[in-house]
Amino acid sequence: MLMLSLLLGVLPVALAEDGYELWLRYRPLPAAQADALRQQSRQLVVADASTTGQHTRDELLRALQAMTGSAPALASRASQAGALLVGTPATLPQLRALQPQLGGLGEEGYLIRRQPIDGRAATVIAANSDIGALYGAFHLLRLLQTGQALPADGIREAPRVKLRMLDHWDNLDGYVERGYAGASIWDWHKLPDYVDPRISDYARANASIGINGSVLNNVNSNAVSLTAPYLAKAAALADVLRPWGIRVYLSARFSAPVEIGGLSTADPLDAGVQRWWRDKADEIYRLIPDFGGFLVKANSEGQPGPQDYGRSHADGANLLADALQPHAGVVMWRAFVYSHEQPDDRARQAYDEFVPLDGRFRDNVLLQVKNGAIDFQPREPFHPLFGAMPKTPLMMEFQITKEYLGFATHLVYLGPLYQETLQSDTLAHGPGSTVASIVEGRLDNHALSGIAGVANIGADRNWTGSQFDQANWYVFGRMAWNPRLDAADIARDWVRMTFTPDPAFVAPVVQMMMGSREAAVDYMTPLGLHHLMGRGHHYGPAPWVEGGSRADWTSVYYHRADADGIGFDRSASGSNAVAQYAPPLAAEFADPRRVPEQYLLWFHHVRWDRPMASGRTLWDELVHHYSRGVEYVRDMRRTWAGLDGHIDAERQQQVAAFLAIQEKEAQWWRDASIAYFQTFSGLPLAAGEAAPAHPLQYYQQLSFPYAPGDGK
Amino acid sequence: MLMLSLLLGVLPVALAEDGYELWLRYRPLPAAQADALRQQSRQLVVADASTTGQHTRDELLRALQAMTGSAPALASRASQAGALLVGTPATLPQLRALQPQLGGLGEEGYLIRRQPIDGRAATVIAANSDIGALYGAFHLLRLLQTGQALPADGIREAPRVKLRMLDHWDNLDGYVERGYAGASIWDWHKLPDYVDPRISDYARANASIGINGSVLNNVNSNAVSLTAPYLAKAAALADVLRPWGIRVYLSARFSAPVEIGGLSTADPLDAGVQRWWRDKADEIYRLIPDFGGFLVKANSEGQPGPQDYGRSHADGANLLADALQPHAGVVMWRAFVYSHEQPDDRARQAYDEFVPLDGRFRDNVLLQVKNGAIDFQPREPFHPLFGAMPKTPLMMEFQITKEYLGFATHLVYLGPLYQETLQSDTLAHGPGSTVASIVEGRLDNHALSGIAGVANIGADRNWTGSQFDQANWYVFGRMAWNPRLDAADIARDWVRMTFTPDPAFVAPVVQMMMGSREAAVDYMTPLGLHHLMGRGHHYGPAPWVEGGSRADWTSVYYHRADADGIGFDRSASGSNAVAQYAPPLAAEFADPRRVPEQYLLWFHHVRWDRPMASGRTLWDELVHHYSRGVEYVRDMRRTWAGLDGHIDAERQQQVAAFLAIQEKEAQWWRDASIAYFQTFSGLPLAAGEAAPAHPLQYYQQLSFPYAPGDGK
Repeated sequence: MLMLSLLLGVLPVALAEDGYELWLRYRPLPAAQADALRQQSRQLVVADASTTGQHTRDELLRALQAMTGSAPALASRASQAGALLVGTPATLPQLRALQPQLGGLGEEGYLIRRQPIDGRAATVIAANSDIGALYGAFHLLRLLQTGQALPADGIREAPRVKLRMLDHWDNLDGYVERGYAGASIWDWHKLPDYVDPRISDYARANASIGINGSVLNNVNSNAVSLTAPYLAKAAALADVLRPWGIRVYLSARFSAPVEIGGLSTADPLDAGVQRWWRDKADEIYRLIPDFGGFLVKANSEGQPGPQDYGRSHADGANLLADALQPHAGVVMWRAFVYSHEQPDDRARQAYDEFVPLDGRFRDNVLLQVKNGAIDFQPREPFHPLFGAMPKTPLMMEFQITKEYLGFATHLVYLGPLYQETLQSDTLAHGPGSTVASIVEGRLDNHALSGIAGVANIGADRNWTGSQFDQANWYVFGRMAWNPRLDAADIARDWVRMTFTPDPAFVAPVVQMMMGSREAAVDYMTPLGLHHLMGRGHHYGPAPWVEGGSRADWTSVYYHRADADGIGFDRSASGSNAVAQYAPPLAAEFADPRRVPEQYLLWFHHVRWDRPMASGRTLWDELVHHYSRGVEYVRDMRRTWAGLDGHIDAERQQQVAAFLAIQEKEAQWWRDASIAYFQTFSGLPLAAGEAAPAHPLQYYQQLSFPYAPGDGK
Repeated sequence: MLMLSLLLGVLPVALAEDGYELWLRYRPLPAAQADALRQQSRQLVVADASTTGQHTRDELLRALQAMTGSAPALASRASQAGALLVGTPATLPQLRALQPQLGGLGEEGYLIRRQPIDGRAATVIAANSDIGALYGAFHLLRLLQTGQALPADGIREAPRVKLRMLDHWDNLDGYVERGYAGASIWDWHKLPDYVDPRISDYARANASIGINGSVLNNVNSNAVSLTAPYLAKAAALADVLRPWGIRVYLSARFSAPVEIGGLSTADPLDAGVQRWWRDKADEIYRLIPDFGGFLVKANSEGQPGPQDYGRSHADGANLLADALQPHAGVVMWRAFVYSHEQPDDRARQAYDEFVPLDGRFRDNVLLQVKNGAIDFQPREPFHPLFGAMPKTPLMMEFQITKEYLGFATHLVYLGPLYQETLQSDTLAHGPGSTVASIVEGRLDNHALSGIAGVANIGADRNWTGSQFDQANWYVFGRMAWNPRLDAADIARDWVRMTFTPDPAFVAPVVQMMMGSREAAVDYMTPLGLHHLMGRGHHYGPAPWVEGGSRADWTSVYYHRADADGIGFDRSASGSNAVAQYAPPLAAEFADPRRVPEQYLLWFHHVRWDRPMASGRTLWDELVHHYSRGVEYVRDMRRTWAGLDGHIDAERQQQVAAFLAIQEKEAQWWRDASIAYFQTFSGLPLAAGEAAPAHPLQYYQQLSFPYAPGDGK
């Protein structure tokens, strides 16, 4: 549609768009801004000896031309006022004088400022590496797209986290576990002979928000990804990703020495196994010299691991770490382990397993910890491992794909979730020991640090299955770079770039986004409830799920509703998971009068008639939250409908259709949950609260055998 | 890329394109042609009361504006010279006088001609229905895009085949069996609430080539597709497809009454089963009033069917036919049945099964027969059922997706394969009894007729996994409309519309295409060999496949190579499958001296040293064919490289990359096949023939566990 309308010479007021361009749309600026920008970019001087430099030059050229309507002159040195210089002191002689200012910026930081060059006004983006310069270019372009001025004293930026990773849960057959945006973007079959141009676009988008690593394959991994043909395929992807500053990583299957190595054991203390992994690492680095390392899910949900041989997680992680160490690779070992043979509260198990191992990991091991102790629920308190393993660098693992948050069709902006977790204070070393400070490695002075996001990217034209899910990819990247950023600020940037900088559009849409996660908590799992979704696929409400192979994969295990009340007692009278937090926090969480209401049923089993802060009983409060969540979605629909005309019709209509689905499904969550919990509370609904649309049995018989993204 | 370069105001000589627009690109015409067209379309008068009429109007408006650079004036009646009128005598009063000319054109035909209207020069597209007018509009647009003049006496066209179907082998989880173009385009999860705009584009492309039916789900079917939620989803698709003249059909699982109906049997003679199907049909037609009917694969490759209850295929087909009959729906019953419990030659089985049933099917049943008796091999003689069941309408089933022809990366134009089959003379009623005449229903005067193509369409941006596979969708549609068209003529139309009308490009590319299928036969299965591909996924050569659950799923079953020779004896001394053809043809095929060499090893086991027409021995001839196939691909690469600059870089490079893969894989087929067959022939290669690059064991150990499209 766009192509045709352009060829027709008919430029509609708002162009039809399909979302493929993400936040890198570079639409024409208002005349005054375009004029100013033209004055400041009469010459474009970019160090372009490297492929990275060429990408930087092309990005600036493309963007400035699109935003101003005219191309800057490319030059090898600034020779007139109004030049934009981009490079390093080593690659651009005119930037040599800036060398002293670049201290402390590291390999990925940059400096942007107005700076006379040879006595003439200029703008410089200076860095210690070409990648730093590329990041600086994207920063400047973000300011230009969002209409923000360059501060008078310029910008000095360096990432606060070293490894900023996307974890793709993509299988070798193209299926994406917990993927709601179509098939995998990796076309393993045609690789390495053909690399889709889309892969460059993927890398470029990631570079624009500072992501510097991609784990290509699912953590529920397959040893075949470590065979020679698949390493050649991964190498072809690495060649495209490298100039954009992105390293390739692989999920490693712990039993690979047996499955593809012909060994009879994968015991980490076996010399033959150690040799096999060293040889495998050598083989990988011959193909991918800057290979990042391995991500490992071991002894969790059926995956093999060191415990199969009576060894510890540290033994397992160190096995791989030793193999990677000569090549400077890292191991990201996941802490998401729990056993159904273990009668203990699932929420306690990772802590119990890993805290005793603190200090026993090699220097090139990071422990990758989910934001909460269960599994990416709409709301969880921060994981008690944060703050509890000072001798080990802990990576954060967020989920970007919305496994538990409505798949692709629910508008749920995850910035507030990420921010809430990162700004949680663990009190590990007293006040100010935030999760962010731990993830950054600052609190305990670790050389390594990292944040991973489980990607929401697929082959859908809009990349993420919906327009608004692009915001979750975006905010993840920005917060991985700087975990102290504000979710609303990032939402504002994203809306301006993705849709329009028109404040009449930006303000209400950012407001919608900022409340959307709380709305999902409300209509799905209010007041600390968790893990109440459909079995297996996790689609829709199913608080009645019970039985099956493991108690901790049911809903009843978590809500524990009965005639008296509801909630999981994790205080001393229950599983005592509260004791895994720092003492002052443990005391707060353990006290039903002090625990924040948003965590009440996470930590306590509470009587239905208990009075809440609002004055309502727990039962009435619960129903109130469900209804409030639905009402919020209804409001979003109204808001969005009122904004018709501000943006292109194609995206407008898709969002509108998805909001309609979200409203229907929010209502479904509310009604099914109330119908079910009412069988325990036996209480009527408060005045004004509508009864569920159907009897409980209706909701219980719904079946979704082909809901997307289910584990395989 | 395209969007950006357009926005930049930089129109490169050849625009970057990704193939999404297919053959409907409507690029600007040369000035003289554009001028002429403007003169002939000053006014555009389209009957647009129906959605179909609106689509017709919009298509013409978009196309004429793009090709001429200016929009025609829309008018409700022609009031000046140079009008283009499109509609029916009932919807456009100015076309009433044409009523007598429209006899015999049916509901889908049309008339296009220069015709004074109220004494002023005009062009008319007149039809008996809005769909006919839409087809006429696409015909005129094809002439304009390809630079062909409207004949002086105009055009009268009606389809020669009634049902022109795409069969999608798409599963409800989005996987496409034998699909090489990404996931399914049907997003079942979001349906019916959201229908991707791409579905309209799919329908529009199909309408442009006359396809009027879509079977939405895999013939290896799932009863869930007949449940209420999935019928609602199918209905949402039907609502979008309907105005483009496309009816929705479903593959029906024979055991559905048991699986979703709660019955204890699916016996076609059981009254409860009959009632269940009648009720199901009623339910479907309430949702989809123009539902087309059912496609059924029964008692084949593990699918349930009437034989499970001791009933015949006719009993099974008639069961469904009776349920659909009140609604004018049809049953397409597949003849692709064979049993591994049956020791007989697989090639004989469909004939033996179905010929005795001729005359026992209801009037609304078509028997859907694959082009050959095995399974969509690179070359097969026409299926002996054609001509052998005069009392039953036989539909043709072609495969468009290249399950056995190199998946998406091999350039293999299927027009010559389709044409070869359709123009085969069965001699059923004497000379001239072509397969085409049978499929058209003309030979035996059937009211129903049909051609189905197993679709090659997926969510890949270019629709079909490669640029050139779009040609196979295109030629299928054109030949379904008129089975007597010439494959080269269609290729020329397609190349002109898809790439450029420049003869310096069109001539060599059409030449490449026209020889490409013979090249694939040569490098895969020359001289009548068949079924020698990898087990399960069918990727690459594997003539050594033996053992496993069924002999007729191995390669050795088909090639029967031994020290003496090679080939399947289907003469009287063997399986006598030749006897299934009309006597004169049977005699020709049975005689190794008269059988065309291209079918030699299909029908005969032949000594390695037998002299061939060329003077070479069979062994040398075989090797010669393998090498010739590889050489043809090498030539295509050279040709394509020499055409660089004629088209956009994006498509040019993708085709070049795929041709490189094809050359590598053609060489692989040749080398592996020769290495294997040499173990039987024990003969050296002729002078000038290169030895295989690797020893046989190398080829035998290759493993492709994640090759796409495998059955599940």
